[in-house]
Amino acid sequence: MKNVTSYIKTHKNRFINELIELLKIPSVSADSAHNQDVLNTADFVKRSLEKAGCDKVELCETPGYPIIYAEKIIDKNLPTVLVYGHYDVQPADPINLWDSPPFEPVIKKTDTHPEGAIFARGACDDKGQMYMHVKAIEFMISSGELPCNVKFMIEGEEEVGSESLSWFVPRNKEKLANDIILISDTGMIANDIPSITTGLRGLSYVEVEVTGPNRDLHSGLYGGAVANPINILTKMIASLHDENNHITIPGFYDNVEELSSDERAEMAKAPFSIENYKKALQIEELYGEKGYSTNERNSIRPTLDVNGIWGGYMGEGAKTVIASKASAKISMRLVPNQEWREITQLFKNHFENIAPKSVSVKVTPHHGGQGYVTPIDNIGYKAASKAYETTFGKIPIPQRSGGSIPIVALFEKELNSKTILMGFGLDSDAIHSPNEHFGIWNYLKGIETIPHFYKNYTELFK
Amino acid sequence: MKNVTSYIKTHKNRFINELIELLKIPSVSADSAHNQDVLNTADFVKRSLEKAGCDKVELCETPGYPIIYAEKIIDKNLPTVLVYGHYDVQPADPINLWDSPPFEPVIKKTDTHPEGAIFARGACDDKGQMYMHVKAIEFMISSGELPCNVKFMIEGEEEVGSESLSWFVPRNKEKLANDIILISDTGMIANDIPSITTGLRGLSYVEVEVTGPNRDLHSGLYGGAVANPINILTKMIASLHDENNHITIPGFYDNVEELSSDERAEMAKAPFSIENYKKALQIEELYGEKGYSTNERNSIRPTLDVNGIWGGYMGEGAKTVIASKASAKISMRLVPNQEWREITQLFKNHFENIAPKSVSVKVTPHHGGQGYVTPIDNIGYKAASKAYETTFGKIPIPQRSGGSIPIVALFEKELNSKTILMGFGLDSDAIHSPNEHFGIWNYLKGIETIPHFYKNYTELFK
Repeated sequence: MKNVTSYIKTHKNRFINELIELLKIPSVSADSAHNQDVLNTADFVKRSLEKAGCDKVELCETPGYPIIYAEKIIDKNLPTVLVYGHYDVQPADPINLWDSPPFEPVIKKTDTHPEGAIFARGACDDKGQMYMHVKAIEFMISSGELPCNVKFMIEGEEEVGSESLSWFVPRNKEKLANDIILISDTGMIANDIPSITTGLRGLSYVEVEVTGPNRDLHSGLYGGAVANPINILTKMIASLHDENNHITIPGFYDNVEELSSDERAEMAKAPFSIENYKKALQIEELYGEKGYSTNERNSIRPTLDVNGIWGGYMGEGAKTVIASKASAKISMRLVPNQEWREITQLFKNHFENIAPKSVSVKVTPHHGGQGYVTPIDNIGYKAASKAYETTFGKIPIPQRSGGSIPIVALFEKELNSKTILMGFGLDSDAIHSPNEHFGIWNYLKGIETIPHFYKNYTELFK
Repeated sequence: MKNVTSYIKTHKNRFINELIELLKIPSVSADSAHNQDVLNTADFVKRSLEKAGCDKVELCETPGYPIIYAEKIIDKNLPTVLVYGHYDVQPADPINLWDSPPFEPVIKKTDTHPEGAIFARGACDDKGQMYMHVKAIEFMISSGELPCNVKFMIEGEEEVGSESLSWFVPRNKEKLANDIILISDTGMIANDIPSITTGLRGLSYVEVEVTGPNRDLHSGLYGGAVANPINILTKMIASLHDENNHITIPGFYDNVEELSSDERAEMAKAPFSIENYKKALQIEELYGEKGYSTNERNSIRPTLDVNGIWGGYMGEGAKTVIASKASAKISMRLVPNQEWREITQLFKNHFENIAPKSVSVKVTPHHGGQGYVTPIDNIGYKAASKAYETTFGKIPIPQRSGGSIPIVALFEKELNSKTILMGFGLDSDAIHSPNEHFGIWNYLKGIETIPHFYKNYTELFK
């Protein structure tokens, strides 16, 4: 893979411009108004894989958005890498907090990206990181250095729960057969501290609605005499954590994987500055589950967060009203061995149980997924670790991520393969937030590192 | 006042049509987009008082919306009644829950109003009830039966805190000098159970904002590791009531007037059906402060209600975000002897105190007012009671209301007058809610009853 750096040098501007074109399409899967944009993005990805030299590129219809499948099979005796990524993005709101429009990519320097970063929704999550793989394959095919077989599966519903992928994978096991799955949809500690994600949290996402009186009421005439759905909702949500910030849903922790003190000691070695972390978020104090460090709280421990809440009068000025309804969106991040459907059911039962009879409660599950762990003695992990060592000059640190890629557990179950998470983004890249960006250095470093994985993996596979 | 019923019979259709015209103007004082509508409504009221035969009608400029002043002085030795009302209305949202447009009045029959009711925002609160007084004066002047002097003061900011009135009254004490103040901006128990409101609750209305991290965060990467402002806000709000639904703000109950058991026993005699109350609101159980009945909870006890809450993702589908900010509008209904400015300060101090250091909190007071009690041995009360007895055939029941007319306490302080609250609306008239309405029977009964008050009061005054 000695030619990869010179290839990148020659094609750098084209690589950046192609990504910028991809980022211009607002493929927001959560918003039906962007339906055509999501479809156009699927087409873009299909054409990109064709141009990169894949043999067979298909736009596979599903009950939802299409999945792009592509392959380059060079020898059936060689191992097969399946690359997964997604072409859909998170909604861009709150739009007014973006310094530049979310779908008009611009390149600006930042403290963590002195060489410049591309600012746009999806720059890092996951268009930029997915596109690194397209460019890495382009290099390996065009230079005749592809050491094994490769398959691509790029979906358009990751940000809304990957339902169509869950439908697609069990129906296409043979087509998707592989030896290892490779995904870039996570981050690393810092540009000079490479790391590989070895664990992901699962997810259960629900919406709750509390209904009190059948209509909005005057808060003077009825205040104090009837249950106010907003007050009740705040009480119910508040009760979901105890004074130590443990989650109070009965059975919630039953299957939670408890790490040994050795494992926790190993985790604690990862470089981390509480002061820098607080400074970056402009908060005075951290907050979380008693008995666990910040890095444990956001990786090996399950959580419950309200992602949205609304009810009553939200306009200018004052309205003395008792609302008829109040609602919230709530997500729980889960850890390995917590079954997301079971947790969703536990939540639903508990939330319905704690509601006073003076209100009625509706719990609507949105979507979910399982947590996941990659053992570091897997040859896929070793191949990735060596690849980073070659291009970064440092052995990467294995680390658990707090995020969720629910589909990874499904892959293991249906395709019987482990997944390697080679992420090149940074925590400060603001994914899911206004001003999301992806460092140009990281983008190119990803394209450079990926071919080394293929080479190392093929050698270790023998 | 023997001619009043025939006068009403003759002019009934005109009285209804005039009120409908008044209701068509969307005088929403809380919304600056309706600025011109509020001013047009002031003009309408001014012209109405001129046509009714008042001698001196003025549109008095204030720092906000104008106050309409009018008078008919017949003899300086006779007593003077000051009529107060307001021409502004509550916002109409949620608009989609109205069966007909809020500013296109329609007459429909209801269970409680088999003779028909006018449906429109402001029909009962307070355009309809205020306009009864204009028509009552028209009758008394045109028929030569006005027994005493009368002054009118109709404002346009009652629904947003009466700030300009608080400015106007101390500056016009001589102009406003009176012996008794008469207001129709409350309700009665039922059309066959007349009642007079003898107490009003005070009000303190605040807005709170909780800020955590400086930007919206990915709930996977940060979930569990930082304070989520929505979770914190729900915890803070929930903690404002204890397990008995007592309010936990230190000092909140210090000055609360405690009624004797005799007084509470007297109150309990008012006809009230818990089953009908629950049925009308379609709720299975009532809810409120331990140790008090429903009618006590919404009249003689202070309350704290969230009137609106918002934060995070409120759109379609799911977004796994930890919001940077969460907000709520909170109002407290106060009882006699609770000083609203002091309570506002107690709330602010407490809410800031209970915030964990991981967030910052901003408390913005909106407005407030004092509670009020009218003694039933006042001759104004006696005059009103006898007036109802004449026109309804029943002695009205004195009752405390849960609502607030903050200006009543100011009147007592600045003008040294007691206020008589002769309300003709019903609880089911949905004031401040979608489908607000006012019974035509009630409207005409009000016009009939008011002149008897003037007559009785003038006689008792001697």
